[in-house]
Amino acid sequence: MNAPQFPPGSVGLVVPQKAVFAEPLSLKSGATLPGFELAYETYGTLNAARSNAVLVCHALNAAHHVAGIYAEEPENVGWWDNMVGPGKPLDTNRFFVIGVNNIGGCHGSTGPMSTNPATGKPWGGGFPVVTVEDWVLAQSKLADYLGIQTFAAVMGGSLGAMQAMQWTLSYPNRIRHSLVIASTPKLSAQNIAFNEVARQAITTDPDFHGGHYYEHGVVPRTGLRLARMLGHITYLSDDAMMEKFGRTLRSGALGFNFDIDFEIESYLRYQGDKFSTYFDANTYLRITKALDYFDPAAQFGDDLSAAMVRAKAAFLVISFTSDWRFAPARSREIVRALLDNRRVVSYLEIDAPHGHDAFLMDDPRYMSAVRAYYENMAL
Amino acid sequence: MNAPQFPPGSVGLVVPQKAVFAEPLSLKSGATLPGFELAYETYGTLNAARSNAVLVCHALNAAHHVAGIYAEEPENVGWWDNMVGPGKPLDTNRFFVIGVNNIGGCHGSTGPMSTNPATGKPWGGGFPVVTVEDWVLAQSKLADYLGIQTFAAVMGGSLGAMQAMQWTLSYPNRIRHSLVIASTPKLSAQNIAFNEVARQAITTDPDFHGGHYYEHGVVPRTGLRLARMLGHITYLSDDAMMEKFGRTLRSGALGFNFDIDFEIESYLRYQGDKFSTYFDANTYLRITKALDYFDPAAQFGDDLSAAMVRAKAAFLVISFTSDWRFAPARSREIVRALLDNRRVVSYLEIDAPHGHDAFLMDDPRYMSAVRAYYENMAL
Repeated sequence: MNAPQFPPGSVGLVVPQKAVFAEPLSLKSGATLPGFELAYETYGTLNAARSNAVLVCHALNAAHHVAGIYAEEPENVGWWDNMVGPGKPLDTNRFFVIGVNNIGGCHGSTGPMSTNPATGKPWGGGFPVVTVEDWVLAQSKLADYLGIQTFAAVMGGSLGAMQAMQWTLSYPNRIRHSLVIASTPKLSAQNIAFNEVARQAITTDPDFHGGHYYEHGVVPRTGLRLARMLGHITYLSDDAMMEKFGRTLRSGALGFNFDIDFEIESYLRYQGDKFSTYFDANTYLRITKALDYFDPAAQFGDDLSAAMVRAKAAFLVISFTSDWRFAPARSREIVRALLDNRRVVSYLEIDAPHGHDAFLMDDPRYMSAVRAYYENMAL
Repeated sequence: MNAPQFPPGSVGLVVPQKAVFAEPLSLKSGATLPGFELAYETYGTLNAARSNAVLVCHALNAAHHVAGIYAEEPENVGWWDNMVGPGKPLDTNRFFVIGVNNIGGCHGSTGPMSTNPATGKPWGGGFPVVTVEDWVLAQSKLADYLGIQTFAAVMGGSLGAMQAMQWTLSYPNRIRHSLVIASTPKLSAQNIAFNEVARQAITTDPDFHGGHYYEHGVVPRTGLRLARMLGHITYLSDDAMMEKFGRTLRSGALGFNFDIDFEIESYLRYQGDKFSTYFDANTYLRITKALDYFDPAAQFGDDLSAAMVRAKAAFLVISFTSDWRFAPARSREIVRALLDNRRVVSYLEIDAPHGHDAFLMDDPRYMSAVRAYYENMAL
């Protein structure tokens, strides 16, 4: 294959890799993982000074496949392919970019579907609850493995941004820039409530079997499907949903039954069906718990400024006006805490209609701001 | 029993009644109900001129028991007892107030749990989809039965307010005032999306059996529980939820499992569990469809002003600033359509933190506005 087969700016064909760690990993819960594997991808080249590495952290429905395509699956484009590539805002001609699937995941890293060496069976419901701190710890082992002492930047949106934030607290000397996009310093009660409904949909599915459904040859697909449908509502703004779907009827007339009447119903069912065929329910449960548990200020009497004292990195914080999941006010809390500590922080509030999903989209002001931030980054 | 047993302003002991209608009812879907029953309650006395009747319409989780208590169930206080009673905003010393359970309901009126005379078995999944228009039609039969030609007012909150609005369109000569509280002229795509997730939770519950679960001796409790949990999120504002529950941990520490960590989780599970023991899933499905289908402007090319030409009533429209389910902007659409037609309309936007549920609460500005509106109403 050769370059012209890829759209301009694509990193092209990529191959996922795996790093194996034999030493145990102590988790925040007190549990220990007896060794673990991380699936990851890299784009660009690590420079001689090893100073141009950028870690891209994923949110709920994503993994290490950040950019490019797989030879065997040409339709499987990386989840942030519009952001990462040669000449793109995070320019792989200049930066060495790493995507990694977090532990507890279902895309190749050690997670509930992996074999528990103590039993020879899948971990299933026995896989520990993992946290943002645990993910960052595991990512630091990958950095060691790749010979990266200090990241030029760690970057993410939503839950990914929580990891970018946590890096500045767990390893303040190993990160120079933190890009925190569409995020929050902690979930609100409403955020937790949505996660809890999703979890209850999964755990009360008769096919859940306490998380040991692999052994029963079933999958709690009904619950996972509902969780995903609900998630999609929170990713879009009311306005964006009205713009995209409105009250358009799928067949032009009301059905007076419980089949699909409105296009929005069709969209949600489709998204739920699709997700439930490939995503692991045990992973979904753990990722939502990691979201709920993230709260760096908790151990500082709810004082985020006190929590951020440890951070030394420079920050770019970006929020989107129509994001009601993690509204701009939540990003401003982060900015305020950083300013309280006289940290270097740039803040951008983008007037975008798309809701939380805006962080994945091609808004030119957003993209050019990230581009400029990276262009100005000394290596 | 005597008056001092009741709190001041209570209508006291009430007894639900039933009206039986032998004639068939033609529904908007094209289906026909071969006769039906309506459970209702009344408070106060119909005056000689029959000019003081007020119909109170219910929303999702409520019925005809608007005010007072039942002798056998002293804890079962009417759902709008703070609004209706002697000396209360809707003063039963002056008005004759009627509460009615809508058809399709599960509190005594003909619905999915009723016997289908054609089969001798419960209607179950075979009960027709009913609409706001159908409910208003059935309510008009109750008005005939009670000898009421014209209501002084029809009043409701949320879905109840849609009925108050529909009365002005279906029977413009039979309603003098319409009180439309915390409502919308039609659901947004996001509103429909939440309803659809709730319906999918119910219909994909293995105990649903196409709505014929009564015959199987089971109830789709898991789905109904999820539907209710989700509903509760939309009834409260993010701020109100944060104020009430915050991130308070139930047992003081994170559990690192999937039991209850946060108080908000406990609240939602409790509400879901409780609801699933008494509410009928088939009714829930039908009520959410009635919400989705309500759209008086649809047959007028989406022109609400054109739709409201028929209305002759005077209106009181009230919204609450923190209601993100049916935001004030939605109420203002109604007001604008009425003003376009030079109708008499008073509009009040209450700065209240409680979200959609504010319409059930005791905000003094809200209560005094409704009180003043009724006090100024000529009989």
